[in-house]
Amino acid sequence: MIRITVWNEYWHEKVSARVAEIYPRGIHNAIADFLKENKRFEVQTATLGDPENGLSDELLENTDVLIWWGHKIHDKVPDSAAERAKKRVLEGMGLIALHSSHMSKPFRLLMGTTCTLKWRKAGEKERLWNILPTHPIARGVGEYFELKHTEMYGERFDIPKPDDIVFLSWFAGGEVFRSGCTWTRGNGRIFYFQPGHETFPIYYDKTVQKIICNAAQWCAPVMFKRLDCEKVEPLEQIEIIEC
Amino acid sequence: MIRITVWNEYWHEKVSARVAEIYPRGIHNAIADFLKENKRFEVQTATLGDPENGLSDELLENTDVLIWWGHKIHDKVPDSAAERAKKRVLEGMGLIALHSSHMSKPFRLLMGTTCTLKWRKAGEKERLWNILPTHPIARGVGEYFELKHTEMYGERFDIPKPDDIVFLSWFAGGEVFRSGCTWTRGNGRIFYFQPGHETFPIYYDKTVQKIICNAAQWCAPVMFKRLDCEKVEPLEQIEIIEC
Amino acid sequence: MIRITVWNEYWHEKVSARVAEIYPRGIHNAIADFLKENKRFEVQTATLGDPENGLSDELLENTDVLIWWGHKIHDKVPDSAAERAKKRVLEGMGLIALHSSHMSKPFRLLMGTTCTLKWRKAGEKERLWNILPTHPIARGVGEYFELKHTEMYGERFDIPKPDDIVFLSWFAGGEVFRSGCTWTRGNGRIFYFQPGHETFPIYYDKTVQKIICNAAQWCAPVMFKRLDCEKVEPLEQIEIIEC
Amino acid sequence: MIRITVWNEYWHEKVSARVAEIYPRGIHNAIADFLKENKRFEVQTATLGDPENGLSDELLENTDVLIWWGHKIHDKVPDSAAERAKKRVLEGMGLIALHSSHMSKPFRLLMGTTCTLKWRKAGEKERLWNILPTHPIARGVGEYFELKHTEMYGERFDIPKPDDIVFLSWFAGGEVFRSGCTWTRGNGRIFYFQPGHETFPIYYDKTVQKIICNAAQWCAPVMFKRLDCEKVEPLEQIEIIEC
Repeated sequence: MIRITVWNEYWHEKVSARVAEIYPRGIHNAIADFLKENKRFEVQTATLGDPENGLSDELLENTDVLIWWGHKIHDKVPDSAAERAKKRVLEGMGLIALHSSHMSKPFRLLMGTTCTLKWRKAGEKERLWNILPTHPIARGVGEYFELKHTEMYGERFDIPKPDDIVFLSWFAGGEVFRSGCTWTRGNGRIFYFQPGHETFPIYYDKTVQKIICNAAQWCAPVMFKRLDCEKVEPLEQIEIIEC
Repeated sequence: MIRITVWNEYWHEKVSARVAEIYPRGIHNAIADFLKENKRFEVQTATLGDPENGLSDELLENTDVLIWWGHKIHDKVPDSAAERAKKRVLEGMGLIALHSSHMSKPFRLLMGTTCTLKWRKAGEKERLWNILPTHPIARGVGEYFELKHTEMYGERFDIPKPDDIVFLSWFAGGEVFRSGCTWTRGNGRIFYFQPGHETFPIYYDKTVQKIICNAAQWCAPVMFKRLDCEKVEPLEQIEIIEC
Repeated sequence: MIRITVWNEYWHEKVSARVAEIYPRGIHNAIADFLKENKRFEVQTATLGDPENGLSDELLENTDVLIWWGHKIHDKVPDSAAERAKKRVLEGMGLIALHSSHMSKPFRLLMGTTCTLKWRKAGEKERLWNILPTHPIARGVGEYFELKHTEMYGERFDIPKPDDIVFLSWFAGGEVFRSGCTWTRGNGRIFYFQPGHETFPIYYDKTVQKIICNAAQWCAPVMFKRLDCEKVEPLEQIEIIEC
Repeated sequence: MIRITVWNEYWHEKVSARVAEIYPRGIHNAIADFLKENKRFEVQTATLGDPENGLSDELLENTDVLIWWGHKIHDKVPDSAAERAKKRVLEGMGLIALHSSHMSKPFRLLMGTTCTLKWRKAGEKERLWNILPTHPIARGVGEYFELKHTEMYGERFDIPKPDDIVFLSWFAGGEVFRSGCTWTRGNGRIFYFQPGHETFPIYYDKTVQKIICNAAQWCAPVMFKRLDCEKVEPLEQIEIIEC
């Protein structure tokens, strides 16, 4: 079983009638719903309004893969909570950062860069090209797929060089974007996936759902281990010099 | 001209007679001295005890390459000072993190990982293999070079995958280490270089000096630019959908 | 089921009493034997002396993972056979190149470099450090393991930058080596693994066996597809200009 | 001085009035002309019709950077000539492969993959995004530049993972492409750059010219060295075991 926690700042759904109509139970539940169809996934949700901002040590210790959706109120996540999430990724937890989560605290702490990009809300078409069809995250995805209306995110995307670029996006308005990228940090695997603007029903798209399911399997932990500096004895016979 | 600031926590030299003997004017001045022989370098030093911990905005804005040496009192660097240094690297400043600086705050903020490793003080021999002789940082360095007595740093070194591994170390006690690694973060170039234990006269070694000089040239900024999210207009004619 | 073919030039075993004693049925059978213990593997062997050098189109079309052992007579493999193997890897077949196979024709064709290195036969100790414990190929392997007597392979190893370096070796005689490396080429996954000198019983080592089993699973094909240049129609309405 | 040889198959210019009109002295001379404006470049041209196909050992030994343009008659380059060029790159010569040269023999030998892609001749617009502005090849290039009419090359481009992706292209017809990529192979640096369809005056574009000039400087050799397997003596005292 892969224990997945879908975390959502859960703000747009409360303040925008349009978003509430698309995601009446919140984006987190829309994502949890399709994940639950996979019998290998044990899925729970958490939101910023939960105790300890939905990021308690206990919850993190019982999470194999954290899926993060945040957009408008990244700064309401306390630094300490973001550090807890980062620490758990380095120990082994997988992280899937969706859409505007490129600016979320845990993702930026793990990347070390500004994670800034170009953006535009014009509801334009996006075509995501699958440039690494042999990657587990791309399993079952064709050469490309399209989102009819979406928010544009464009290069230059200030991220560390990804381990793999799985998807590259074309936007009708003229931009390109590295829209599906992977990294390994510590013992944890990370996937950033660009689709997800809240005013369009992106998370009901079957290909988007498939990719998030694939990614959850791909970033499930191999092991959890706290990483520390360790003083060690020599493995070969050497003369010890005082120093 | 490349404006270099050599920053040192400047602690061991004050509390250890042995270190003070090797580096009577501090490690920072020993490093500054050989850098000054290059007429393209304009070199200054800064230490933790300076105003604003030697990391004021003004100093950073007048620094092209920051060389960092810290070991014992990383936690005395205020978070705000570390964030300033990180921010300046992302804007374009080069960073050379020496020896124990793998655990310094700015380096860890930029890497996003724990940067932990194995270590041992036994004064053993280290042989650094030059595995990328075509890299500018390896210019003039032979197939390998040796440090007769040094502190051992061993794998697993918890760092993000380097852009390039320039040096790989062999230790007499049985370990190996990625001892010269590069990354690009934002607009800034970063080089981590392992040699430098304070109780041995490492920074008087001619090959170590050459590599630090090469690295200072390699990580000199191409440009400084503050990176931000930017709202942009479409470059192609598209229908704008409200969203 | 993963269909594995273990290919061996099968020369040393015939001309050296020492090698024949260690591997009486050939290195290929020693490798096939431990692979057969995994019920998900369907294992066959092939040798240079077989029809079409053990590399017929039919055999390759029925192979998911090709394990290659060659050392002394790489040049007896016809170019056409090597090209067939390369082509099949690009279509999706996995390749595990063992020990001296760094100089084999298919591996070099896929790498594009000379694949040269330093070497020494002194029967010295090798310690392989597991620097990427979360990689599937390292599953179940500890922080390091040792081979008491082996041939030394040392840097500089002229290979393209690996996707991942899983193992780094320490040799008693003073060298280091990237001894476990992965690449993706076309649709195929490739693993180079250094252990295997024929005059020592390396392939009876349980850790070596575990790694080869892990690697066979890791490089099993996601899909087979012949890659070609493809003329395509526009996906967006554009004015066609004669050109 | 950087000694540059611009090699051209020189075919289209002879059989197509349209191409001859754009490049009356051949594409190679159009490229040589703007390179010659840089006083650090010593520029010569060579074509398929020259003795030894313009790829003699003598010429290669006097070339620091080889710029290659080929399209229709890649197969007229003898394998032996392609192998000579490949060998020289591994020794240290830089290679810039332009446009359809993704299918040229030397480039494919160095990549090890099929180098296939999607294509379309519709004379559509291409916008090249500069996603790595700190790379020397991108010096002086803005956030993007456009080619009004060009041949489309689209993903999936079957190349090994580039060391750096400098340019990403957007095409009006709906595709994206990694249009400026770098690799290091052996001692040599390689740059693939997509612009260049022969029926449009691409090589008169000032940004294209700047990028090719930048690239010629970037891939100039650090050193030439023939790489070989080398038997070495131990650097540490070890017991030699017969093997």
